Amino acid sequence: MPSVSKPSSSRRVLTDLRRREILAAAIKVFGKKGFADTRAEDVAAAAKIAKGTLYLYFKSKEDIYATAVLHAIGQLQSLVAERVSEASGVRDKLAAAIAIRLKFWLDQENLYRLLLTVGREQKHRRQTNDVLRVGHDSLLAIFEEGVASGELPPGNFDTLSWAILDMVRGCNERRLDGLTDRTPQQDADFIIETALQSLGI
Amino acid sequence: MPSVSKPSSSRRVLTDLRRREILAAAIKVFGKKGFADTRAEDVAAAAKIAKGTLYLYFKSKEDIYATAVLHAIGQLQSLVAERVSEASGVRDKLAAAIAIRLKFWLDQENLYRLLLTVGREQKHRRQTNDVLRVGHDSLLAIFEEGVASGELPPGNFDTLSWAILDMVRGCNERRLDGLTDRTPQQDADFIIETALQSLGI
Repeated sequence: MPSVSKPSSSRRVLTDLRRREILAAAIKVFGKKGFADTRAEDVAAAAKIAKGTLYLYFKSKEDIYATAVLHAIGQLQSLVAERVSEASGVRDKLAAAIAIRLKFWLDQENLYRLLLTVGREQKHRRQTNDVLRVGHDSLLAIFEEGVASGELPPGNFDTLSWAILDMVRGCNERRLDGLTDRTPQQDADFIIETALQSLGI
Repeated sequence: MPSVSKPSSSRRVLTDLRRREILAAAIKVFGKKGFADTRAEDVAAAAKIAKGTLYLYFKSKEDIYATAVLHAIGQLQSLVAERVSEASGVRDKLAAAIAIRLKFWLDQENLYRLLLTVGREQKHRRQTNDVLRVGHDSLLAIFEEGVASGELPPGNFDTLSWAILDMVRGCNERRLDGLTDRTPQQDADFIIETALQSLGI
């Protein structure tokens, strides 16, 4: 009965839209004032809603942060999955996965800074580590596919997958802080070559 | 005139000792309560001094954090310099530098966590980046010495030096968070091999 489900689903779309607007406003405020110094009032003002209304959508600024990370990681993962599935062979799949991770955060500087700071605090460390593990597992899958197809000899790719994530993060961080004049593509090329050399390719 | 300088120098030693006691107590409190939630009273209580006395030694908790990092980094740098100068050849010098960086923070978990969180906040990012740059430059010096001695062909070792630091940090972080069962030595071996392979050695 579409006439019954329609209002409820359009309400859900509206709620979702409103939540995304609040998230975007909040991330900007966190970037400007710092996470610790931001109060619910600041977020409500930036999102042009009443403080009471804000609490209908989010329990706390911790909740806002965690939800923003979940949304962004969801986007990142589907981008990575799409590009990796389009590429063929270990080198190209790896190149796709690394290149996206080096470009994705350029447009989301404020959120990435939060991930690097707030994300390592006690309250959020578990979520951050889950995020890292998903990234690790997606790299590992590329290597394991390479073994299955006979392109790579069997081996343990666990440490290398972590090392790739570590190097990507360092490059992203230095770019954010203006400590490098290298392009994301140059960074990607270095990381891919280092990984392939480590595999003896 | 040693009779004049003596009281002043012993006073300085006492001040220094007291400062170090306060630092150690503060770092523990930060680890327990979280940096954001720690007040000057908490630090004073842990150091068994009055709050007013605390302010004779440090301006703020930000000051305490920054001083603790300076002390630790000073220690780390002299350790690295000592071990690297004792080793000979690029491989052994690199191994020494990496091994120390993977062991040093094991005993200073609370301070390392602060470096990973508070250290990336706006107020402290500059100090953190200075710390990273010093680490980077000390690795770069090993490669440049290798070129000077003819052990390495001339090249640009900038990116590789950063990549080594990135991998070390990732390993340290996963060990702190209990996400790995690898030993610091296993991590060091992987990073050294990856670096040498990237150099074609």
